[in-house]
Amino acid sequence: MSELRKDPVTGRWVIISTERRKRPTDFHFESVQTTGEDSCPFCEGHEGMTPRELLAFGRNGSAPNGPGWSLRVIPNQFPVLRVEGTLERQGEGLFDKMNGIGAHEVIIETPRHADTLATLDEDAVEQVFWACRERVLDLKRDRRFRYMIIFKNHGAAAGASLEHSHTQLIALPIVPREVRDEVDGARAHYEAKERCVFCDILRQESADGRRLIVENADMTAIAPYAPRFPFETWILPRRHQALFEEAPRHEYRALARLLGDLLRRMNQALKMPPYNLLIHNAPVAEPAGEYYHWHVEIIPKLTKVAGFEWATGFYVNPTAPEEAAQVLREVRT
Amino acid sequence: MSELRKDPVTGRWVIISTERRKRPTDFHFESVQTTGEDSCPFCEGHEGMTPRELLAFGRNGSAPNGPGWSLRVIPNQFPVLRVEGTLERQGEGLFDKMNGIGAHEVIIETPRHADTLATLDEDAVEQVFWACRERVLDLKRDRRFRYMIIFKNHGAAAGASLEHSHTQLIALPIVPREVRDEVDGARAHYEAKERCVFCDILRQESADGRRLIVENADMTAIAPYAPRFPFETWILPRRHQALFEEAPRHEYRALARLLGDLLRRMNQALKMPPYNLLIHNAPVAEPAGEYYHWHVEIIPKLTKVAGFEWATGFYVNPTAPEEAAQVLREVRT
Repeated sequence: MSELRKDPVTGRWVIISTERRKRPTDFHFESVQTTGEDSCPFCEGHEGMTPRELLAFGRNGSAPNGPGWSLRVIPNQFPVLRVEGTLERQGEGLFDKMNGIGAHEVIIETPRHADTLATLDEDAVEQVFWACRERVLDLKRDRRFRYMIIFKNHGAAAGASLEHSHTQLIALPIVPREVRDEVDGARAHYEAKERCVFCDILRQESADGRRLIVENADMTAIAPYAPRFPFETWILPRRHQALFEEAPRHEYRALARLLGDLLRRMNQALKMPPYNLLIHNAPVAEPAGEYYHWHVEIIPKLTKVAGFEWATGFYVNPTAPEEAAQVLREVRT
Repeated sequence: MSELRKDPVTGRWVIISTERRKRPTDFHFESVQTTGEDSCPFCEGHEGMTPRELLAFGRNGSAPNGPGWSLRVIPNQFPVLRVEGTLERQGEGLFDKMNGIGAHEVIIETPRHADTLATLDEDAVEQVFWACRERVLDLKRDRRFRYMIIFKNHGAAAGASLEHSHTQLIALPIVPREVRDEVDGARAHYEAKERCVFCDILRQESADGRRLIVENADMTAIAPYAPRFPFETWILPRRHQALFEEAPRHEYRALARLLGDLLRRMNQALKMPPYNLLIHNAPVAEPAGEYYHWHVEIIPKLTKVAGFEWATGFYVNPTAPEEAAQVLREVRT
C-alpha cells in the first residue's frame, strides 16, 4: 500500500507510491556527458568572454581576467536581477511590485571543462564553499538583500545552459516562498519544543539508520522521510548552526569530502544523473540562530514533473527513501 | 528593468524578466500531435482494456463497458492512491504518516483518438465539466477525503502518458500545500477587507484591460499579474462562487465556450503547446463560501523548470503577462 508522509519541517505531505514503484534502473533520463567546447566562456584562457571577475582563487601573481586561477566568480552575463538602481516599492491597486534589484553571480568551479564536483579533489570542492561564503558575506553588507540563493544545475536536463561546472548565487530583495515555509516551520517547532527540528531529525535518523546514506565526523547524508523526488538527499552538519557562512573551516572540508563521495555514489547507481544542488540557509537579518540549521539538498533529475505537481504542491514519489538510501549506501566506492 | 511582482492571493513573489524576455516564437518545445494508436485503451471499441466504468454519458441504451458513449469515467489502472482500506494515521517519532487512501479516476473526454479540447464542440467540452461535477459530488460523500484535484496533462511534455484526451481526478485525505496557501491567502484577504480577493482581481483587471484575454457573459480569461510561467492563464467565473460543483448550468456552458476559444488561441499563437489545466476548488468541508472563488488555471509548458525553482518557490518568468495577454487577444479566431 502507498503511504502519505508529512515533512516535519514544512508540513508538506507527499505520496510514496508503491503502485508506481521505481528502482534505479527504471528511470529514463539524460546521463550527463561533457562534450568539450572550444567556445566555452568558462574555460581557462577564455576569460575575455566573461564579465570582469569579482573574485578568483589560485592566482599566484597572475593578473585578473587572464589565465592562472583555480576558481573564478563573475557576474552573470544575463542576470535575472541587477545591482544598479533602487527598489521603488509600489502598489498598483491590489497588486505590489518593486524593481528587479539583486545580484546574480556565477562561481566557475574549475578551469578545466571536463571536471565535475564528483571528479574534482577535496581541495577544489572545498574552495567552492569558501567562494560562496565570501560572496555571501560581501552581499550581506547591501541592506537591500533579504536572501541569497546558492544553487547548482548540473546537466541540461537540470536547467544548466553551459556544461562547464559552475554554481550560481542570486541575492534577492525578498524571501522566496518555499524558504519562508521552511524557516517558519523550523521556528514553530522551536517554539513548541525548544529544540531545532533539524537536530531532532539528525538524532532520529542516526538512531533509526534506514535512511542514513553516509556520514563523517561533521556531516551526515540522509534520504529525508518525506522526499518529493526519488533519491532526494540532504547533507546536514551534525553540529547546530543556522548560517552556512558562519560554519567553521573543518565543516567545509567535511562537506567537500561527503559531497564528492555522495555524487560518485549517485553517478554509479544512477548513471551520471543530471541534478540540482541547493544550499538551504537562513534569511539575512532574521534572528534564526536557535531554530534554523543550514544544510545542502541534492535532487537528481530522474522524473518529469507535471504541472499539477507545481500547482498543487502535491508530489508522488515512486521510490521510498529507505530504498534510495540503501541503494546509495551499498554502492562500492 | 526586470520587475518583482507579488501574487495577491498566495503572496508569492515572481520575477518578470526583461533581460531574458521571450516572445512566442522564442520558445522551443514539443508541439502536441496525436499520432493515433491501435492499442489505445481509451478509444471506442477498446473498453475491455480499461477497468470497469464508473460513469458514462451518451449511452442511448448501449451496455456499460462496450462501445456507444460520448464520455467515460474509469478508475485509473495505476492509481497513486486506492479507495480500499483505512487511513491508520500514525506517528513515527517526529514523523507522521497515513495509508495511501484516496481515489484516482480518469475522465475519457471523447471516444475518438484525435479529438482535443480545442477541436471538440461546446457540448462535448461542457460534458467534461458535468462529469467532473458528478464525480466530485459522489466522492464528497466519503468523509475520508479532504480535497479533490481535477487536472489535465496535455502532451507528453506536460506529463501525459497516454495521448488520447483525458482529465484526471484525485481525491486526497489531506489538503495539498499550494491549495492550503491559496485558500489561507483568500481567507486573510476576506478577514482584512470583507471582500473576495478573486472578485477584487476581476474588478481591477476588467477596469485595467491590459491583462484581459477574452471574456463572455459569465467567464473572464486573464493573464494573472504575477504569473510563474509564460502564458499562464486563469479563467474566472464573473459571479462569486466558492465551489466548482455548485456552479449553475449556464456557467459550465460559458466555461466550455471560453476554454475552447482560449485553447485555439494558444494553439495558433504557441504552435499547439503541451499544457496543464487545473480546476482550483475549495477544500471539502471547509466553510469557504465567502472568501474562496473557484477558477481554472491553464499553464502551457514552454519552459524548463530547474530544481531550484521548485525548491525555493522562486520563479523567473521571461514573458510579461501584459505581453502574453496581448498576443492571445490579437489572435484572429
